[in-house]
Amino acid sequence: MKQQYAIGIDIGGTNTVFGIVDHRGATLYRGAISSRKHEKIEDYIDELYQALEPAIDQVGGIDYIKGIGIGAPNGNYYSGTIDYAPNLIWKGIIPLASLITEKFGVPAALTNDANAAAVGEMMYGAAKGMKDFIMITLGTGVGSGIVANGHLIYGHDGFAGELGHTTIIPNGRLHPGTDMYGSLESYASATGVASTAREFLNNNPDRGSLLRNYPADEIDSRIVYECAMEGDEIAKEVYEYTGAILGLALANFVMFSSPEAIILFGGMTKAGDLILKPTKEHMEKNLLPIFQNKVKLIFSELKEADAAILGASALVWEIKSPATN
Amino acid sequence: MKQQYAIGIDIGGTNTVFGIVDHRGATLYRGAISSRKHEKIEDYIDELYQALEPAIDQVGGIDYIKGIGIGAPNGNYYSGTIDYAPNLIWKGIIPLASLITEKFGVPAALTNDANAAAVGEMMYGAAKGMKDFIMITLGTGVGSGIVANGHLIYGHDGFAGELGHTTIIPNGRLHPGTDMYGSLESYASATGVASTAREFLNNNPDRGSLLRNYPADEIDSRIVYECAMEGDEIAKEVYEYTGAILGLALANFVMFSSPEAIILFGGMTKAGDLILKPTKEHMEKNLLPIFQNKVKLIFSELKEADAAILGASALVWEIKSPATN
Repeated sequence: MKQQYAIGIDIGGTNTVFGIVDHRGATLYRGAISSRKHEKIEDYIDELYQALEPAIDQVGGIDYIKGIGIGAPNGNYYSGTIDYAPNLIWKGIIPLASLITEKFGVPAALTNDANAAAVGEMMYGAAKGMKDFIMITLGTGVGSGIVANGHLIYGHDGFAGELGHTTIIPNGRLHPGTDMYGSLESYASATGVASTAREFLNNNPDRGSLLRNYPADEIDSRIVYECAMEGDEIAKEVYEYTGAILGLALANFVMFSSPEAIILFGGMTKAGDLILKPTKEHMEKNLLPIFQNKVKLIFSELKEADAAILGASALVWEIKSPATN
Repeated sequence: MKQQYAIGIDIGGTNTVFGIVDHRGATLYRGAISSRKHEKIEDYIDELYQALEPAIDQVGGIDYIKGIGIGAPNGNYYSGTIDYAPNLIWKGIIPLASLITEKFGVPAALTNDANAAAVGEMMYGAAKGMKDFIMITLGTGVGSGIVANGHLIYGHDGFAGELGHTTIIPNGRLHPGTDMYGSLESYASATGVASTAREFLNNNPDRGSLLRNYPADEIDSRIVYECAMEGDEIAKEVYEYTGAILGLALANFVMFSSPEAIILFGGMTKAGDLILKPTKEHMEKNLLPIFQNKVKLIFSELKEADAAILGASALVWEIKSPATN
């Protein structure tokens, strides 16, 4: 059987990771290049092509590749473009899918990284068989992918699912990237956890804390986690507070699309019960009774190293081949 | 052609309205009965049957009716049941669709009233041809129906789209019906507008207002509207405030499902620009730039008297007949 493989590419602000994946979700090859080396997108795609060429040859050549799936910030599924991504070095509107198709000679599909992760989770992870779920990625930022009636919600213009930017605390914390106040991302991201820790230390000058062993601007979510695990009260309160805000936001999302599950993914999930318990408690507390104790709140089952590639590659199996169009 | 008519029934807390509708959305017959007269649901259905029988005979008999669509608070599309509706006299879980089918001998479909309105708007109103939109009903309460990829979002359990109960102001105003704080419904409903007016009068004892001509507990959204139209400052501020909160909520909904339009429906829309202008302003202000100036914010095009019946009847055209299942 030809066309049994898909290429998955995940473009992050710093690095691009990619791999060749088979239909069952096994990753046969992995690689990475910098996302920041080439200011011209064409040069970046040339390097990507050179990096992937030997692996493509190993699986039998490009005829064995059904297509290329790409996850990228501000990636638009309908237009195949990356539009004004603040964290990438290519500015304006980049027609990435068509450039990739031109270079590699196979169809390409593009969406944002959280949507790609949701598709991956649906095909290979915790959402297998689910028709209604929400994927929340908790990393440097907060992203989301929403599946309803078995399909990703792209919305009218392809940008649906920006739940990290919904306002949870009106007139709350300023988000330096968006200039908006009180968005979920400004609290529930790794960056948000570090901000909360600094706030709590400032607001409680008389309370001792292991966190005070670190210079304020070096505190990150990993340090807060480690201090909390050692029993530090302020560090534990930081996770309580983060979970309270995340739980409130998730309750709102549940009352929107009534999912079977909410799947949490990304670096912040390493905090385990420290984040999961308060989040669950406050989600339930803020739900109408008809929604209570129905929605599974779970962590992703995908290995983080592979998830980005798997998710992006999974888009390929949804590309319609010209023959069946 | 037989089966060219549908019956639409809209069950409100006080009254039930119903009618016979043809495929183009013309209402041939209308009627109404009380929703509160019969404590036994079977007695209520008997009265409904007697009220509809002459009209059914007039269109040629039950063979000409394809089915019955029902909009009701807490109506569940999947199970055909009304579950724990706080405003209806029938408590617990009511298997309404099957009771109606049994009595009338035709298929019945049930959903909540706002979902029914959304289907009606998609078939006959402002959302004709749209695949992604959100319907917000602003009446005594706040309801919603969400359409994505051309289909209503029912969610995993059939209760999706309870946007009126999402929390917009954490620890905000208490909603006496749900015991929750700061939900959209507690501000943006007709009841909410009246509460805001009373709050503003109490908090500004030294400011004159036409609203002070009315006993506080008689102030309703119609009085606030009339005072605002006469130039009363406090009454105008009430609508500004209501629009600010509604606009913030709508921005969150846009970042969820990226609709082509948000359609406002219900009694509150009679306030026209008084509510529309601040809502639009605050919606745009709270959107990420990639969503700004893209989403139409419009009023329903359905005549309010017919809309509930039309919306409910429109459900019928989506019922699959046994032959094509």
